[in-house]
Amino acid sequence: MSYFDAASSAPLHPVARQALTASLDEGWADPARLYREGRRARLLLDAAREAAAEAVGCRPDELVFTSSGTHAVHSGIAGALAGRRRVGAHLAVSAVEHSSVLHAAEVHEAGGGTVTRVPVGRTGAVDPSGYAAALRPDTALACLQSANHEVGTEQPVAEVAEACRAAGVPLLVDAAQSLGWGRVEGDWSLLAASAHKWGGPAGVGLLVLRKGVRFAPQGPADERESGRAAGFENIPAIVAAAASLRAVRAEAAAEAARLRELTDRIRARVPSLVPDVEVVGDPERRLPGVVTFSCLYVDGETLLHELDRAGFSVSSGSSCTSSTLTPSHVLKAMGVLSEGNVRVSLPPGAAEEDVERFLSVLPGAVTAVRGKLGAPAPAATAEAAGAAEAAGAATVRDGSGDALVVDSLGKRCPIPVIELAKVFGDVPVGGTVRVLADDEAARLDIPAWCEMRGQEYVGEEPADRGSAYLVRRVS
Amino acid sequence: MSYFDAASSAPLHPVARQALTASLDEGWADPARLYREGRRARLLLDAAREAAAEAVGCRPDELVFTSSGTHAVHSGIAGALAGRRRVGAHLAVSAVEHSSVLHAAEVHEAGGGTVTRVPVGRTGAVDPSGYAAALRPDTALACLQSANHEVGTEQPVAEVAEACRAAGVPLLVDAAQSLGWGRVEGDWSLLAASAHKWGGPAGVGLLVLRKGVRFAPQGPADERESGRAAGFENIPAIVAAAASLRAVRAEAAAEAARLRELTDRIRARVPSLVPDVEVVGDPERRLPGVVTFSCLYVDGETLLHELDRAGFSVSSGSSCTSSTLTPSHVLKAMGVLSEGNVRVSLPPGAAEEDVERFLSVLPGAVTAVRGKLGAPAPAATAEAAGAAEAAGAATVRDGSGDALVVDSLGKRCPIPVIELAKVFGDVPVGGTVRVLADDEAARLDIPAWCEMRGQEYVGEEPADRGSAYLVRRVS
Repeated sequence: MSYFDAASSAPLHPVARQALTASLDEGWADPARLYREGRRARLLLDAAREAAAEAVGCRPDELVFTSSGTHAVHSGIAGALAGRRRVGAHLAVSAVEHSSVLHAAEVHEAGGGTVTRVPVGRTGAVDPSGYAAALRPDTALACLQSANHEVGTEQPVAEVAEACRAAGVPLLVDAAQSLGWGRVEGDWSLLAASAHKWGGPAGVGLLVLRKGVRFAPQGPADERESGRAAGFENIPAIVAAAASLRAVRAEAAAEAARLRELTDRIRARVPSLVPDVEVVGDPERRLPGVVTFSCLYVDGETLLHELDRAGFSVSSGSSCTSSTLTPSHVLKAMGVLSEGNVRVSLPPGAAEEDVERFLSVLPGAVTAVRGKLGAPAPAATAEAAGAAEAAGAATVRDGSGDALVVDSLGKRCPIPVIELAKVFGDVPVGGTVRVLADDEAARLDIPAWCEMRGQEYVGEEPADRGSAYLVRRVS
Repeated sequence: MSYFDAASSAPLHPVARQALTASLDEGWADPARLYREGRRARLLLDAAREAAAEAVGCRPDELVFTSSGTHAVHSGIAGALAGRRRVGAHLAVSAVEHSSVLHAAEVHEAGGGTVTRVPVGRTGAVDPSGYAAALRPDTALACLQSANHEVGTEQPVAEVAEACRAAGVPLLVDAAQSLGWGRVEGDWSLLAASAHKWGGPAGVGLLVLRKGVRFAPQGPADERESGRAAGFENIPAIVAAAASLRAVRAEAAAEAARLRELTDRIRARVPSLVPDVEVVGDPERRLPGVVTFSCLYVDGETLLHELDRAGFSVSSGSSCTSSTLTPSHVLKAMGVLSEGNVRVSLPPGAAEEDVERFLSVLPGAVTAVRGKLGAPAPAATAEAAGAAEAAGAATVRDGSGDALVVDSLGKRCPIPVIELAKVFGDVPVGGTVRVLADDEAARLDIPAWCEMRGQEYVGEEPADRGSAYLVRRVS
C-alpha cells in the first residue's frame, strides 16, 4: 500500500512515536502544580516550547500549543480581530485558504464584519500587489497560507507581509503545509500550524503571536497556555510534536530535493501517459511533495476507488467525492478543471519505485473510469459513443436553429462535459452548443474544457432549471 | 513518591497506554477519507465511540469526542444556550462548578445573558428544591456537576434533572470527576467529561447531547464529529480514552469500596491527629477517593511544600497557593475554612501503606508550618506568642474603649486569623475584637474560625483600608 496523501495527515514519524511513548510516564500530571510530578510535566512542556519556537523562529513566550491546527487558526483569527476591533472589522483572506480560515471568516461576516477574499491566478498564488490593494484603513487582520494544501503552490508570504506591515495590518500565516519544510520567511505577525501534517501526533497545533501584536483571546477565560488555548495540556503529544518537528527539519533539505524530483516526474509524465489531463498549480514555487492534476471525463470518486484498489491512497478536490456537491473552492478560485481531480502528496520517505508504479497504474485506472462512463476517448469507438447514447445523452436543435442543445439536467460531474464533448464533433465551426446543467461542477469544468480544447466559452445564462453554458466551436 | 492528586489528573492507566501505542500505527490517517488508511482510522473511531457511549449510557450518535473536557464544557454550554435563544438568555449553574463552567457563564453574562449561581450548603451540595427555584421561564440551560472536584461531594443530579425536565430546561452535567466510577443517573440532557481524569490520555473530552435537545454549535463550522467538535480527530488518544474507561469501570465497584475505606480513615483520623482541623465535604455522598480538610493557622503553599518534601503530591484550595489571591470559590461558597486547605484525591490503586504514611507525616508537617508562623498551638508557649509579637502583630484598644483592634492590613492568609487567635485570650467574655484585614481569605476564614471555636462572628464593616471583621467572645 502506498500512502500518497501526506497533505491530509502524515504517518507518525518514528521520532514522534518514540518521544510520545517515552513521555507518557512523565507528562500526565498538571504542569501548573508545584509538586514533583507537576514540575516534571512543566519541564517537558517548557523544553518542547523552546524546541518548537526555535523551529518556527520565534521566542518561546510567543508560542502556545493548541489542541489542533484548526483551533490555532480559529482562536488566532478571533483573537486578532477582537484585539483590533477599534481599527475596524475588515478581514482579508486569500480565496484559496484552508476551510478553517474560510469558516472563521464566515463567522466574522455573520457577526457583522466584512471579508475580502483576494483572488488567485491560474497557478493558485495571490498577486502581492493585488493582496496589498485589498487592505483598507479598517482592515483588522489579513490571512495568507504559506502554501496551498490542494495544489501545493507557495504563496508570496514575505511580499504580502511587507505590504501588510506598510499598511499597519497584522498578517496571520497558516503554515500547516510548510512548517515541516522550513521557517516561514517574512515579517508576519501570527502563525498557525498543525503537528500531524509534519508527522507529529494529532491533537497538537501551534499558535504563534509576535510580541506587540494586539490580541484579545475570545471564548471563556482559561489560564493555561498564556490564556490563549483552553484545556488541559496534552504534554506527551506536545513533546512528540516538537521532537518530530526537529527531526523532519534535520532531514528537510535532502528530502525536499528528493521528493521534488519525484513530483517533477509526475508533473512531466502524467500528461504524456494520460490524454486530456491538466496538471495544476505552480510548476516552480510549490511544496516538494505535492502534485495535482485533473482528468477530463473522469469521476473523481471512481478514480480514487480504482487507485485504492491498485494500492494507492490519494485524495481529490472533485465535487464527486465530497458530500457538499460543490468542487473544491481552491480549484474553483484557480478556474481550472475540477473533474477527475487527483492530489498526490508524498510523505517523506516515499519510495521512488512506488511513484513509478503509480505512473504505470494511473493510465489504466483513468481508461477504466472513462470506459465505464462512455467518455469520448482520443480514439473513440462507435461502441463508446453508443454507450453514452444509451446512458441518456439527449441532444436537440433548439428553436432558433443555430445552437445544439445538450440537456444534462440532473446529471452529475463529469457527465455534462462528456455529453458536450460527444456532440461537439457534429457542430460546424462557428456553431454553438448550449449545455443545460444543474451540477455545480459544470460552471467550472465547461470553461476549463474549452480552455483545454482551444474552443470558445461564450458564457453562462440562467435557464428554467440550472444554467445554460454556451460554447462556440472555433476549430 | 505518593501521588494523591488524581482529581487534577490521573496517571495513565496501563490499558490506556497499551491501546494508545497499539493504535498509533492504525489511527493517524483522516477518518473522512475513503482509502484504506482512512477506513481503518474510521473503524477505530467508530469502535471507540460505541465503547464510550456504552459506558456513558447513550447512543453512539449522541456522543462526540472533543479535544478536552474544557472544550466539551465550553462548546456544550455555548451550543445549548444558542439552541434555545428563543426561550431566553438565562443560565443556571451551581456556585461550586468547575472553573470551565463558571468562565463560560461569565462569557454568557458579558454577552448580555443572565446567570443564577445556585448556592450550596456547608457540605457543598445544592438543595434540589433550591435549584428548582432558580429555574425561570426564560432559563435556556442549567448546569450541575455530578460531583465536586475540590471536596468530592456528590450533587443530587437525578433530582435536579427531574426538576429541570418538569420546567422544560435541559440540564448539562459536568461528569468529569465521576464518569470513571459509573454512569450519571437521572434524565439529564447533555454531559461533558474528560479522559485524563479516569486514566485516559490528555487531549480527549466527551460531549454527549441527547436526541431532541436543541443545539446550535457556535464558532466556525467544521464537519468533523457531527459539527460539534472542530479539528482533526486524535484517534489513538480517543481509542485509549475509551479503552481505559471500560477498564476502570470493570474495576470500579471493588476499587471504590477500597478507596472509600481509605478516605474514611483520613476523614476520621486527621481531626484527632492534627488539632484545629476542619474536614469539609459531605461525609457520605461523596467520591470514593477524595477527602479535603483545612488546617487553622497554616499557609497552604508552605504545607504543600512540606508534604511534597515528604513524598506526597496533594493540592489545595487555599488562596496562598493561587496566583489570584482569592480562596477557592468552592470553599467560599460552602462557607468553610480555606486556610491550610489540603485535598487528597487517591488514584485507583493507591496503596494502604502510603495512606498510613501520609497520616503519620501530616501532623509533623502541620506543626512545622504552624511553628514557622508562630501560630497559637493548642499548648501555646510563651516563645510562640513572643514570635508573633516580633512578627508585628499590632493590637490597640480602639477609641470607643470596648473593642480590641487587630491591625492585619497588608498581611496574607493565615496571619490575620493567627493574630486574632493570639489576642483572643485577652478579651473578656462579652468583649469584641475588630480585625482589620485586606486579604480576601479573611472574609472566609474569620467566620470559619468563630464557627470552629464556638465564638460569635458579629459581622463585617467597611474600613479605611480593607474591612473590619467583628468577633465577640462568648465563652
